[in-house]
Amino acid sequence: MIQITLPDGSIKAFEENVTPMDVAKSISEGLARNVISASYNGTTVETVTPLTTDGSLVLYTWNNDEGKKAFWHSSAHVLAQAIEELYPGAKLTIGPAIENGYYYDVDFGDQIVSDKDFKTIENKMLEIARGKHAFNLRPISKAEALETYKNNPYKTELIENLEDGTITFCDHSTFTDLCRGGHIPNTGIIKAVKVLSVAGAYWRGDEKNKQLTRVYGISFPKQKELTEYLHLLEEAKKRDHRKLGKELELFTFSSKVGQGLPLWLPKGAELRERLENFLKKAQKKQGYEMVVTPHIGQKELYVTSGHYAKYGEDSFQPIKTPKDGEEFLLKPMNCPHHCEIYNSSQWSYKDLPKRFAEFGTVYRYEQSGELHGLTRVRGFTQDDAHIFCTPDQLDEEFKKVIDLVLYVFGSLGFENFTAQVSLRDPNNPEKYIGSDENWEKAEKAILNATIEKGLDYVVETGEAAFYGPKLDFMVKDALGRQWQLGTIQVDYNLPERFELTYKGSDNEMHRPVMIHRAPFGSMERFIAILLEHTGGNFPLWLMPDQAIILSISEKYEKYAEKVLNVLENHEIRALVDNRNETIGKKIREAEMKKIPYMIIIGESEEQENKISVRQHGGEDLGSLSIEEFAKIVETETNKTLKQF
Amino acid sequence: MIQITLPDGSIKAFEENVTPMDVAKSISEGLARNVISASYNGTTVETVTPLTTDGSLVLYTWNNDEGKKAFWHSSAHVLAQAIEELYPGAKLTIGPAIENGYYYDVDFGDQIVSDKDFKTIENKMLEIARGKHAFNLRPISKAEALETYKNNPYKTELIENLEDGTITFCDHSTFTDLCRGGHIPNTGIIKAVKVLSVAGAYWRGDEKNKQLTRVYGISFPKQKELTEYLHLLEEAKKRDHRKLGKELELFTFSSKVGQGLPLWLPKGAELRERLENFLKKAQKKQGYEMVVTPHIGQKELYVTSGHYAKYGEDSFQPIKTPKDGEEFLLKPMNCPHHCEIYNSSQWSYKDLPKRFAEFGTVYRYEQSGELHGLTRVRGFTQDDAHIFCTPDQLDEEFKKVIDLVLYVFGSLGFENFTAQVSLRDPNNPEKYIGSDENWEKAEKAILNATIEKGLDYVVETGEAAFYGPKLDFMVKDALGRQWQLGTIQVDYNLPERFELTYKGSDNEMHRPVMIHRAPFGSMERFIAILLEHTGGNFPLWLMPDQAIILSISEKYEKYAEKVLNVLENHEIRALVDNRNETIGKKIREAEMKKIPYMIIIGESEEQENKISVRQHGGEDLGSLSIEEFAKIVETETNKTLKQF
Repeated sequence: MIQITLPDGSIKAFEENVTPMDVAKSISEGLARNVISASYNGTTVETVTPLTTDGSLVLYTWNNDEGKKAFWHSSAHVLAQAIEELYPGAKLTIGPAIENGYYYDVDFGDQIVSDKDFKTIENKMLEIARGKHAFNLRPISKAEALETYKNNPYKTELIENLEDGTITFCDHSTFTDLCRGGHIPNTGIIKAVKVLSVAGAYWRGDEKNKQLTRVYGISFPKQKELTEYLHLLEEAKKRDHRKLGKELELFTFSSKVGQGLPLWLPKGAELRERLENFLKKAQKKQGYEMVVTPHIGQKELYVTSGHYAKYGEDSFQPIKTPKDGEEFLLKPMNCPHHCEIYNSSQWSYKDLPKRFAEFGTVYRYEQSGELHGLTRVRGFTQDDAHIFCTPDQLDEEFKKVIDLVLYVFGSLGFENFTAQVSLRDPNNPEKYIGSDENWEKAEKAILNATIEKGLDYVVETGEAAFYGPKLDFMVKDALGRQWQLGTIQVDYNLPERFELTYKGSDNEMHRPVMIHRAPFGSMERFIAILLEHTGGNFPLWLMPDQAIILSISEKYEKYAEKVLNVLENHEIRALVDNRNETIGKKIREAEMKKIPYMIIIGESEEQENKISVRQHGGEDLGSLSIEEFAKIVETETNKTLKQF
Repeated sequence: MIQITLPDGSIKAFEENVTPMDVAKSISEGLARNVISASYNGTTVETVTPLTTDGSLVLYTWNNDEGKKAFWHSSAHVLAQAIEELYPGAKLTIGPAIENGYYYDVDFGDQIVSDKDFKTIENKMLEIARGKHAFNLRPISKAEALETYKNNPYKTELIENLEDGTITFCDHSTFTDLCRGGHIPNTGIIKAVKVLSVAGAYWRGDEKNKQLTRVYGISFPKQKELTEYLHLLEEAKKRDHRKLGKELELFTFSSKVGQGLPLWLPKGAELRERLENFLKKAQKKQGYEMVVTPHIGQKELYVTSGHYAKYGEDSFQPIKTPKDGEEFLLKPMNCPHHCEIYNSSQWSYKDLPKRFAEFGTVYRYEQSGELHGLTRVRGFTQDDAHIFCTPDQLDEEFKKVIDLVLYVFGSLGFENFTAQVSLRDPNNPEKYIGSDENWEKAEKAILNATIEKGLDYVVETGEAAFYGPKLDFMVKDALGRQWQLGTIQVDYNLPERFELTYKGSDNEMHRPVMIHRAPFGSMERFIAILLEHTGGNFPLWLMPDQAIILSISEKYEKYAEKVLNVLENHEIRALVDNRNETIGKKIREAEMKKIPYMIIIGESEEQENKISVRQHGGEDLGSLSIEEFAKIVETETNKTLKQF
């Protein structure tokens, strides 16, 4: 008999060679139907693997990331079999599960695979799946494995790097692959498959090697789930911030200026400014003070901060001067500059907290292949601030920052988020800087604040930075995708390195604690996510243009100007489209630009001194006085943009 | 007889060997009394130099820069004589006139000269001056000159670099110096002298050479002028923006961040923002659109713009990447980025002018010795904009820019300025890019606009940039010092280099014209000059703190808060000083901080719901209601900050 511990802590005795599936059955038939993967003592096992020692068992279903991984890994086997059957002579290489689905890299030789072939591959995969073939993992000697793949140089290379005695093959149906395991019980669970795309990929990611064809696929246990996923993909494509950014004329890139360096067009620059002013106003109420610091600093500054030793080699390289022999770095963060501002005066405990805020543009080198629209750039503006406070003030300050973050999220329509609290690993205290007492105080302050503010949170022990604990906000967007937005970090390191001090009530000098925080994270990333979250339909208060006046004909130009003036007096941002075009075309274009309100004016409107208002998306608000309309805009604005 | 042309164009015949002084006498005795220097055919001559050929003569008095130069150059001779007499063995080196006065670099050997000795030197100089010694320039052979200075290695080195036959000595009184000429008639004109300071200076400016003592002096034809000058120096010291910047907590520097890189403290950052918002608002009314661009650009961008070839070697050196092999430069100007923004769309003549504005921070390398407070820095923010227009729109756009500049100057108390119009040299058309037709159009546009706007202007022919004509505003500050503030430049070069186009009404593609303009110039320099111009007493609308509430005792804390709230509702920026200090001390400190209004509250004020108001500088406005006070502030604000 062996003792098996389950996730709820219960321990049960089973006969040796019991399988995870047997254990599932012993719990309930329902569970057994849903179990598709398992891990034993932290290692992935097959659901049919005989267990021979005492240990901890976790059973996974489709609802776990581990379950999905096994599902998609197994689907990659099915894809490979379909390819082998449809493209004789194609050489398989590797085929892992990825975040959404799986791929297989294949050397198709002279054969070409394109969109047209996807349906055929899918049908073949479904045909195989319906066979309900079990996956069977078996050990194999290195010699035999090499013999099997003697005509496949890729698998041969993989096997040569493995140690004899550790190699396994996986069989299902008539197909065999080199594999480490982690499969679902049988192919029959795969009910829906989709080949998503093909792309070129170098063998082992090295451009000196041969280019292979990477076939991307996804699969689900239910057809409905595939339909939903494809819809989501379609939606995501429509909401791609790079596409929307172009359509809404927010930003652009120039190959001459350089990749990863956005150029903000007028509407985008206005949007940024509106967001900045919104945050500035809220920050002012919390006693923040704005500062402005340069975008470079002497190398020495980053030697002091410790960033140079840690990141120097992988960053933009130092800027030399033609004379004077100085070296500067593009600033990768604003904190060293803010520490120097703190150090430019002497402070007493009565002056603290000092809260220095800056929309500071920083530059970090990313490899060109890593760049992506506004979410992965080389230059970005942080909505940065550093709070310098006494250890006793940490609790209160932390709560204020959470209030601010919640205000930001609420005003921008992010309703679905969790807080991730990262604490230190209590078993490795030597990894961290700062006294035990301070760490305890800080961790308690964060947890207290998180609980008191009623945040939905998870604690990640051991995930703290070496310089202090932190709280990250994980936000779900309208498509259910998760983004890290907003961070609050406690720092004991920089105050030490920059020798920051304040005079305490005891007349002795003390080190302040520092909080780094950025509710948006960065303007670039935040705007990208907001674009994808809202599809460009920003909250009304943020829209670049809130209304557009569409005249039925050029005759109403004067009335259009009059309406515009009244709207401007009500601080409503509006445009006039007075072109000699049909009203239908004007409406279509305004819809494309996602302008929330279309104001149509013609003869009757001018005569009655009214406007006809149509909302983005089609709803007709009918004939209104300009004042009535202004009231609607005000009410709508106040729904999201509340007082802080 | 020779023919002499005078500045008014008149030509007179004189006997050969007539001297400039003779000519002056022939015009009037009054002129002759005032003439202190002259130039003949563009070369400086003595007033006693015999003229032997036909030519153009200009006579200079103390009121000309050339006259002052001769006066101070001659004074340096007198200083040198005084030093030689007072410090036997001191070795003279060089002693030029400078912008304000003159200096002499001297090797004093073991002797030390300090403040205490200035009076003695001055007295000796005045004693020499009273001798009314004439200056006599005479040619000397190289051999004889070397023999004279055989004990002075500095003069020997200077003479060795001169060509035999071109060397002259100048005698006056018992003193002789190696000299090229340019003296006043005699020492008697020098009525007032002042030794200002001594400083170390390396021979020939090279730190490998011996350090000499540089003795700075100034002199005037009247004692009253010296007194005024010294008063001005005193005032300038008080208004030094570096001193005021510290006192008013506007900005600081950090040796760790790097020299020439200002850190803006909260009050300074607010001041900047207020200035920026002021300009943004005015710009918006003129149809400018804000953009945001990165602080770096690929080297290629500046190769295209031509800046790299011209300035690359003397600038901050390229930033290399750890991979990808790219090179970036810190941006020294915003125009290439704005050209790329223009190029990101296609434009028709109907879309123009496009006016892209950015408060763009740029970085330019300056040698450490050249740096000075905020007026000479390595990083600064330009209130930059680029107007892209058709050649036909140039006239109108130029006038609009002048309107904007005049609005800026008017709102900030700069009332004394002239416009300097720089045109091309019509004799060297090959020096300039762009067609004759366009140049004529642009020069005409600038001149027309300047005249039409009633500007006091001077034309500088040949001073245009190679890429277009320009207009610079030369502003006099409260101390009468002149600063270049604000520039408008036409550019035909960048549109060519970046291949900018628009589709004309003829359906053909054309090149737009570009205007660079910056009313402030840069935020740093402008704020420095504004500080020195106002002594920190900014126009009321711009003051960081407009009022401070001073409570007689801590008892009135609540009433102080109430007053503050009402002021904030009136958008008056106010502070509260509720410390347990005497009202006298609070007033003194508020005066130091130059806060325009001090609001004193005590028992009677609280009971009557009033405030006692005292203006910066001492005037008592008596007891007022808060509303009455708000009205005063509003009226005062509107005096300088008018609607645009």
